[in-house]
Amino acid sequence: MREIAIIGIGQTVIDEHWTSSLRDLAVEAVVNCLRDAGRDQVDGLYIGNMLSGILGQQESIGSLIADWTGLRPAEAVKVEAACGSGAAAFRLAIQAISSGELDTAIALGVEKMTETKGSDTTAALAEAADADFETMHGVTFVAINAMIMQRYMHEYGWSHAQFAPFPIVAHSNALNNPYARLHEEIDVNTYESARIISSPINLLDASPIGDGAAAVYIVPVESINKGNRAKKMISIAGSASATDTLAVHDRRRVTGLAAAQKSAQSAYSQADVAPKQIDLFELHDAFSIMAVLSLEACGFVEEGQGPRLGLDGEIYPGGKIPIATLGGLKARGHPVGATGIYQIVELVQQLRGCAGKAQITDAKVGMAQNIGGSGATVLTHILKVK
Amino acid sequence: MREIAIIGIGQTVIDEHWTSSLRDLAVEAVVNCLRDAGRDQVDGLYIGNMLSGILGQQESIGSLIADWTGLRPAEAVKVEAACGSGAAAFRLAIQAISSGELDTAIALGVEKMTETKGSDTTAALAEAADADFETMHGVTFVAINAMIMQRYMHEYGWSHAQFAPFPIVAHSNALNNPYARLHEEIDVNTYESARIISSPINLLDASPIGDGAAAVYIVPVESINKGNRAKKMISIAGSASATDTLAVHDRRRVTGLAAAQKSAQSAYSQADVAPKQIDLFELHDAFSIMAVLSLEACGFVEEGQGPRLGLDGEIYPGGKIPIATLGGLKARGHPVGATGIYQIVELVQQLRGCAGKAQITDAKVGMAQNIGGSGATVLTHILKVK
Repeated sequence: MREIAIIGIGQTVIDEHWTSSLRDLAVEAVVNCLRDAGRDQVDGLYIGNMLSGILGQQESIGSLIADWTGLRPAEAVKVEAACGSGAAAFRLAIQAISSGELDTAIALGVEKMTETKGSDTTAALAEAADADFETMHGVTFVAINAMIMQRYMHEYGWSHAQFAPFPIVAHSNALNNPYARLHEEIDVNTYESARIISSPINLLDASPIGDGAAAVYIVPVESINKGNRAKKMISIAGSASATDTLAVHDRRRVTGLAAAQKSAQSAYSQADVAPKQIDLFELHDAFSIMAVLSLEACGFVEEGQGPRLGLDGEIYPGGKIPIATLGGLKARGHPVGATGIYQIVELVQQLRGCAGKAQITDAKVGMAQNIGGSGATVLTHILKVK
Repeated sequence: MREIAIIGIGQTVIDEHWTSSLRDLAVEAVVNCLRDAGRDQVDGLYIGNMLSGILGQQESIGSLIADWTGLRPAEAVKVEAACGSGAAAFRLAIQAISSGELDTAIALGVEKMTETKGSDTTAALAEAADADFETMHGVTFVAINAMIMQRYMHEYGWSHAQFAPFPIVAHSNALNNPYARLHEEIDVNTYESARIISSPINLLDASPIGDGAAAVYIVPVESINKGNRAKKMISIAGSASATDTLAVHDRRRVTGLAAAQKSAQSAYSQADVAPKQIDLFELHDAFSIMAVLSLEACGFVEEGQGPRLGLDGEIYPGGKIPIATLGGLKARGHPVGATGIYQIVELVQQLRGCAGKAQITDAKVGMAQNIGGSGATVLTHILKVK
């Protein structure tokens, strides 16, 4: 397999972009990415997106965005794996390069969730659950996660307040990220007094939707002129994906993420690293409970003890395993199909040492985990400073 | 790049399946495919589908179908490129194998277009056009193709009746395909008296929608025990994709398919063949005009002269370039995201010599071309008997 490096990143602010369409956001992220990479063409464009068809009445966004970004006639497709769409697109871009067929690729994540033409966004997001066996009973995507959190609290004896560090660290870190959706410091009192969305999940357990796009440019390491590099070279050391049942009730254990564990183990093995060597972890904190389960599945703490990492301060910058270092889904925002690429862009910012006040000291190895459905499709990527 | 072979195929009848859901159709095709391949597991599942989110209120079908087909925890994603989704999934499966990361993959195409939960199917299909600059004016997908056909007839002086051989050969060939949607012989009189859908396109210029699924199982050639093969080995000799503008009015020429030409040239070059060495061509006859433009773009006839191939009988079995040998989109049916995989399955049937009464004598090299949008995303694949 060809060794692959990320040579360019680009992103938009995540917000309610009332005057930017999906294609506008894609163009902004891709143009920023091309400029950072110092390129103006690409062989292939892999687009993570979940909702363009449902909310924007627009499919075929592969060719659409290839054209509007000036990359036509590059090959281009849309990839969908619910909230895991972004990392799924990244993984396909990696395989396209490692196959030797393409020499350059862009993985783009883009989502337009506000100011939409189609059905309401909550109903659209519920399409990430099983339509015939979950959604038809009226359950929303938040409600599914609420049932998982309730069961977890019951099984392991944690109180709601003990999850507070997860949104608190995300909001704190987002203050240093100009691209983040939210810039509001919170504390345990703010957290505990937030209104309930679907008990026990309250507003501050849940990540905000938003409009945004992020892109990365990848090439084989062998193609890079090493004498002439302005930036640190960031290489892809591990890439893995696995699936679990889509319907949560079909799982043997609803409080564990089997696919997260499997994809993390594969990525560790490829990268030849153990959890203790990971300097920062951009995890999928769509809900506080998902942050906890992701940390457990990836071996940072034993089952049922995830909240301990928060209470002990280990998830903060300087801790054992800093998470959501630029705000995470919770505060950077969660434009669903774009999120997986935002995570990769942020890892690159950290590994290049260009994360400003959010910089994790001496970051050399970073991991991202992107989760589609409530643990149904999980992708794990490990990046290293080369 | 690893040389890749197709060792299993599976498909469902294309029909209005009133008692089968999208997942049921997927299971039937995948189970048939696994049985044909003599396998029961796979490393990766690549699913071509356009409309599950819009019509079925179900995204995340990667993990859903991996689970329901018994392939969990295999990695799985949905790939969308409008009517080109099937071949786009096939190409990604190929790259996953040729990267060396996966050793086995299934490319599945599946579409459920009747008995749906969501919006009406014509509106959903219009999402293959540019929502902001075409669809918002009320144009349907058929109407866009009608404008292309009108312009072509005007530029090159063909009458509507001169397109008759395209639907006639498709309907004739479909009589020998038990999986086909339509089994009705037609002639030039039937064709000319069919009711107008969007002038000059009439009912018999347009392919029927339908529910269906088709799957292929691929592995590296090096992994096959050559002493122990019951079937001919079919290898993938060429795979290419290219894009054009999504909005037809943005093209320099609306009567030529630039992306079809580019992807065909790449595929020819990879396979080291010329058009005259192609024994059969499963082309994208979603509309009669698209069959004509595809034949021209792929070099089987000069620009503006496509109808000549039909009038001279060259597109029939035994002709210079037999097309739609098992019915094509026109009569086998066009379950949009599944179509590209049906084309590959049919090529394998022909190259194995298992196409029954539809068999093209001595078929050794076959080509398939799958078109998303009105020429926006075009994928070309060439298969050979090895």
